Parts: sequence; structure tokens; C-alpha cells
Amino acid sequence: MPCAILRPHPLTSAQLSNMAKKKTAPKNAFYAQSGGVSAVINASAAGVIETAKKHPRQIGRLYAGRHGIIGALTEDLIDVYKESPALLKGLKHTPAGAFGSARFKLKGLEQNKAEYERLIEVFKAHDIGYFFYNGGNDSMDTALKVSQIGESMGYPITCVGVPKTVDNDLPHTDCCPGFGSVAKYIAVSTREAALDVASMARTSTKVFVLEVMGRHAGWIAAAGGLAGRKAGDPPHIILFPEVPFEKDKFLGKVKQCVTDYGFCVIVVSEGSATPDGKFLADAGTTDAFGHTQLGGVGPLVANMVREAHGYKYHWAVADYLQRAARHIASKVDVDQAYAVGKAAVELAVKGVNAVMPTIVRKASKPYKWTIGHVPLAEVANKEKKLPPEYITADGFGITEACRRYLEPLIGGEAYPPYKDGLPDYVRIKGVGVKRKLKTDFKA
Amino acid sequence: MPCAILRPHPLTSAQLSNMAKKKTAPKNAFYAQSGGVSAVINASAAGVIETAKKHPRQIGRLYAGRHGIIGALTEDLIDVYKESPALLKGLKHTPAGAFGSARFKLKGLEQNKAEYERLIEVFKAHDIGYFFYNGGNDSMDTALKVSQIGESMGYPITCVGVPKTVDNDLPHTDCCPGFGSVAKYIAVSTREAALDVASMARTSTKVFVLEVMGRHAGWIAAAGGLAGRKAGDPPHIILFPEVPFEKDKFLGKVKQCVTDYGFCVIVVSEGSATPDGKFLADAGTTDAFGHTQLGGVGPLVANMVREAHGYKYHWAVADYLQRAARHIASKVDVDQAYAVGKAAVELAVKGVNAVMPTIVRKASKPYKWTIGHVPLAEVANKEKKLPPEYITADGFGITEACRRYLEPLIGGEAYPPYKDGLPDYVRIKGVGVKRKLKTDFKA
Repeated sequence: MPCAILRPHPLTSAQLSNMAKKKTAPKNAFYAQSGGVSAVINASAAGVIETAKKHPRQIGRLYAGRHGIIGALTEDLIDVYKESPALLKGLKHTPAGAFGSARFKLKGLEQNKAEYERLIEVFKAHDIGYFFYNGGNDSMDTALKVSQIGESMGYPITCVGVPKTVDNDLPHTDCCPGFGSVAKYIAVSTREAALDVASMARTSTKVFVLEVMGRHAGWIAAAGGLAGRKAGDPPHIILFPEVPFEKDKFLGKVKQCVTDYGFCVIVVSEGSATPDGKFLADAGTTDAFGHTQLGGVGPLVANMVREAHGYKYHWAVADYLQRAARHIASKVDVDQAYAVGKAAVELAVKGVNAVMPTIVRKASKPYKWTIGHVPLAEVANKEKKLPPEYITADGFGITEACRRYLEPLIGGEAYPPYKDGLPDYVRIKGVGVKRKLKTDFKA
Repeated sequence: MPCAILRPHPLTSAQLSNMAKKKTAPKNAFYAQSGGVSAVINASAAGVIETAKKHPRQIGRLYAGRHGIIGALTEDLIDVYKESPALLKGLKHTPAGAFGSARFKLKGLEQNKAEYERLIEVFKAHDIGYFFYNGGNDSMDTALKVSQIGESMGYPITCVGVPKTVDNDLPHTDCCPGFGSVAKYIAVSTREAALDVASMARTSTKVFVLEVMGRHAGWIAAAGGLAGRKAGDPPHIILFPEVPFEKDKFLGKVKQCVTDYGFCVIVVSEGSATPDGKFLADAGTTDAFGHTQLGGVGPLVANMVREAHGYKYHWAVADYLQRAARHIASKVDVDQAYAVGKAAVELAVKGVNAVMPTIVRKASKPYKWTIGHVPLAEVANKEKKLPPEYITADGFGITEACRRYLEPLIGGEAYPPYKDGLPDYVRIKGVGVKRKLKTDFKA
């Protein structure tokens, strides 16, 4: 890893003068939020912004892309330093993407060189020498490519990824900022809904299904398992994307739970799939009116139970509520989100290029972590699934090893301030940077 | 209203002796939770229990029905005073029905006298002279009937209702305990999800639909309106049960919002209905496989938008999550829930029969309230809907008058304690009272 080393031997005055010149010519930085947002991505933004401000000799201005990378392509840049101190403070407790995010994956260099060239053109026009990209697997791939194309076009740019994904599927990091808060929301909600069902089951609802996010990895579903503490505690069944769904086995387990406990609480991942790899939610295609399947996998599974056993059921689909739930964010998650933003800037100003800060677990109980980093090439487009040893033998629960891994990540509460009974979330002014290019780009 | 009056004139020694005897013969009390539970119904239980303990000369033991009124009918009583002090303290911050609730409506006296007679039989066997029934409209009707049948059977029993319903539809009270916390949850969730959609709308989801409870009254849906502060703020559309759903008008408004703001956030009440009074959720009946309609009204409305305009959408159904969300309970709601429990016992020991404590608003800003009471006959089976002056002229929003009414009810946070990242909710020991009857009852 390259880093600034203080040379002990004397320098010539010409060398010293050159270094001083270098120091007086800071480059601007660009920051963008990418992909699905989270409860703490703005805490990462706060980490980037506050740390950039501490390095004025390397970083001149900090620009954010309005709606992520789209803002760079269309030269729609937000002058971050024009935001008020109150806004910058408020970012730490405000969910979703304050600067706007985008679902926009830059294609391979060969297929769409024009997009990358456009990025470099905009960066050049605004003297941008640092690129901070706050996202998941896809975004790390983009950051890597931007670094490569800049190099090949003779405009080197220091690219550092800032990890973010509620899916928790980035490799080489203990966890991903954004996940801890979703995990806490799902664990809390599962515990609360389970108490509700338990108190009603004698005469009313016997089966409750909660659908959670995680199309390819079952980390969020697994977090539902934290709601219970001992055998028999709800949730009684978790359906993971990693475990092929077997209808009969599932229905048998539901019946067993209702018999044994009087009710059954089920957490189902949106990515649950049949043994032949088809998403459960895709099983039914159109209804009697030719409408596209309305329900998600939650109502589908609930209905399956009703048809087989006739139990009264309820289902909930948390959808965006889970990933936006800053009101119940994990303090650990907020701290880590801020820390990776801060570390990204610290790495960049040291000249470390094409890397992503990671979270390194030092101990689980009490949880101790520190920040490391990994080359972007090691994380780009890779997915970390739930390992088999985190899933119980019957495929329906989490093991103690999984609990040991997950529990620290939901640790601590980081409540936002309230006004008139509601969280006092902030909004950016979003002052634009004057355009310098005459060319347009249709994103 | 009958109440204890201190007589200023001297009493004979026989009279004094009689009074002393009366004082040394306390009656036991019965408490039951009824209907759908809430985040704060246990706070009402705490109010009942702690206050009952302060009146040992009138109230001997306090028994709770296991699973509500079912526990009385089947002589399955919980000896509440055998619970630990920690449990009793924990009730104030534990959601759902700690003693078990029931969806079990006693029919009219004529139709099913046996059930009422059985109740009195059990009450007599356990020397129960006080009946505290914690529920909504139906439950107030039951409490009234128990009072009447006791009287007619020569076993007078003091019956006091303890109001509880997330639907907020009881008349003669400023609001219903349980509602403020659901309202806060829905307002917070709407604000959070709206921030999520706003940050993604440029390239992804343009329409977000949140389905909320409230089959007959739009109070919960209206609470979603608190998420916005000024014109144009989300939610852009609220669909109330009180406003007949007009598809074309609705779709036109959605398009207008996406054009004006870039996205559209919709809160829809499960009770939304067509002009001919049919629930929207009942519109589609079966799908291609003969399955019963899986989705609720949320996915249905979202799909309607997609079919008409092609916008990418997401939808969430909060279901039990909303009414069990003690983690984000309104402090005002918790305080009021406790206060009505306390008042119920205070009224009962004064001999006030067949009433329900109410919440009386003294001022809105700052919110000032006190406790009153109303005869059960005035609330039994009556429903308070959202008044027309609380709904904007276009039928899609809440007025300032509505905001003034709602805002105080979500005031303050009353966070539960946490352990290992999760709320530390309590569970009862639930020690049963020895049965005295030889007869069984099949509920």
C-alpha cells in the first residue's frame, strides 16, 4: 500500500519548492451515492464531508452528484461546502440519499466507453482528482473502471469506494453499512409482531408472515432470527434464498408450530426460490384479469398456508420501511457508516487508489472493530451469501454462530432528534456548481 | 353519578360496625384484554393493576382472563398479584396483550344468555365484584351487558370499560389509547419511506404505496399526512374509507404528482371502498389458479398505477408491525393508556358503574388533557369516523384542523429499555387461580 513517508534525508531547495507547489494545488473531490439507499448512507456522506474539510491542502472543493453518477454524467454537481453546518450535522441522523442516488450501472469499458470518457471530461472540467463512490458491488466495479479509464486517458483520479448495502453481501468486510440498521428493524419488528400474534392466536390469527428484503442473500431474513432467544421462541420459520423452498416440508413445519406453540411466525426473504431456482414470488404470473401478480412472496406463502391448513393468517411486507427506518437505526451501524466515509477520504489523500475501506472484526462480545481496506478488484461484482454453518440443519433457523455474528451489528440505539412528534430529518439546499461544458449528455 | 359522600351527622354504633364490616370485605376484580391489541394496552393493564393495589380495602385480588373473556368463560384466571414487580413495571413498555386477548363478541342477551350466566357463575365463584374490560366498541357493549345481567341475576358487579383501539373510532373521548402510537409509527414510516423514494425516483421507483389499518375509519391513514409539513410534501395522496374511491381522478392525481414532484407517495387505508361501498381489496376475487386474492389494497392500488402509467412502483403493508410498534410509541399515548386504566379502578372503587373513562382535550398547543367518563351505553357499538372538515376538498389530504387534532397525539417518545440491541419486553408468569367450578364451558 503506497503511503506518504517522511524522508529523513535533506532535500534540495528545488525539491522543497516543488513539494510546496504540489501542496498549494489541491484537487476537487466528487462524491456520489449509488443504488438502493439506506438508513445510514448519509452518515457515510457526513464522514466524507467532514474529513474532506480537514484536508484543504489536498481537497479543494467537494462536489456531490445530484442523483448519483447521473449528476456527474450530466454535469449536475452540488456544491457540498455551501450546505449549512446544521445540514451537515443532520446528515448523520437522516435516512435515504440526501444528494439523490441512482440505479445506473455503467456498462463494461468496451461496450460503453463514451460514458466513462464523459465522466473524465466532467471531472477534468471541474478539476476533480478524487472520486468517492458510495454503494454496493456494482458501484465498486464502476469505481474501479473509473480509476482505470482515468489512467488510460492520462487523467489519473484517485478512486475510493465507500461500502453501502443493506444486503450485507460485500466480501472482505465484516459487514456492510446499512445492514445493521435493517437487521435491527427486522429483529425488533419480528419480536413485536410475534407478541401481537401470540396474544391473539387463541381466537384469531395463527400464522403471521413477514416479507423482508434480500433478493440473493439471506442476511436480512437471518436478522429476524434475533427476535427469539430460546428454543420455541418466534420466529419459528425463516425462509432463506440459500435454502431451496420445499413446500411440503414447510407446510409440515407450520402445522407442527401451531400445534406446539399455538401460532407460527414466519420470516420470508423476497429471494426465496424453488429447488429449480425460480423465485417463489414469480411462481404465479397473472391473475384472472390478466393482471401481473400483485403480491410479493409474503402473501403468497401466507395463502399457501391457508389453503393447506385453513389457519387464519396475516402478512406484512416491510419494503422501503425497513431500509429507511432511521428512527430505529443501530448505533454500531451509524458509527461504521461514518467511519468508512472518513477512512475513504483519509486513504485518498494519502494517495491510496482503487480501494474500499472495510470493517474488521476484532472481537464479538463485546464487539470490537477497526477499519481496514481492500482493493476494489477484490470486491467488484462479488457476492457474500449466508454460509451453511449459519443455517440450522432443518433449513428454517439461524445457528448460534450466526447469532454471534449478527448480534453485535444491531447494538445500540442512535435516535434522531424529534420535532412535533416526528424525526427532524434534514434536506439539502443543493446549490449547483456552475457548468463548464457546452456538451450535453443524455443519461 | 353515585359517589361516596361523608355524612357529617353522627352514626349509631351499629351503623359504624356495619360500615367497618363492609370495609373489611373487599371484592376481587377481573381484568381482560379484548380485540386487536396495541402498543400500549399493557400500559392500561399497568394502570389498572397498580391502582387496584392501592385500594386493598375495596379490591382483594386482581385476576386477569387468560386470552381475555375466554379466560372468564373457561374459568382460566391469572393471579395478577403473583407477577413480579419487574413484570408489572415492564408492562408499561411491552406491546401486545400480555394476558392474551380474544376476538370473541358476546352475542345479545336474548340470543345467548348462557354465556352471560356463565360469566356471572364464574365471577360469583371467585367473589369478583369488579369487571374491567379493556377494548373497543364491541367490548364496551359487552361490559354494559355484564353489568345488566349481573343486576338482573342478583349479583351486581361494577363494570368499567377501559378504552383501547388503534382505530380511534370510539365516541366521546378525544382519542383512544393505542391510536397515538400507530399514528406516530405511520407518520414516521411515511416520512422515512418518502425520503427513500425521493432519492431514488430519478432512475427507479416513482410511486410508493403504504397500506395502513382502519377498515371503517380513516384516522390511521390521516396520520400519514403528518409526515409532510408544507404543500407538495409527501404523502401526496391519502385514500380514506370516508371518501369513495374514483379511479380516474386518483390516476390523474398520481400523474400530476409524478410530473410536479418527480414521484408520488400514497397512503391507502385498508378500508378504501368504491362509490358503491365495496372494499377495493375485495374487487379482484381469484387469480388464474383459483387462489383467493392474495394482495391487500396496497399492491392493488400500486398495480393500478403501473397499468395506467407504467411507473415503477413499490408497496408496503405494515399490518401488525404498525400496532405492535412499541419501540416508537407516542409518549402521550402511553401516558393516556395508563391514565384510563388508573381512572377505571378509581371510578369503580367509588362505586361508579357502567362507565368508560374518556380523554378530555383542554388545549391543543401545548396539548393539555384530563380524564372524564361517559356511560357505557353512550359508546357501545358506536363508531366515530373522520369528520368531513378533516379532509381536504379534493379528498386526498388532511386539513389544518385535522393536523391540529392529530399532532399532539404523537407527541413525545417513550422508548423501551434495550438488551443486546433489542427491546427488553416482558412476559407474564401467568400463575393460574385454582378452579372452583366443576362445570366446563366450551368457548
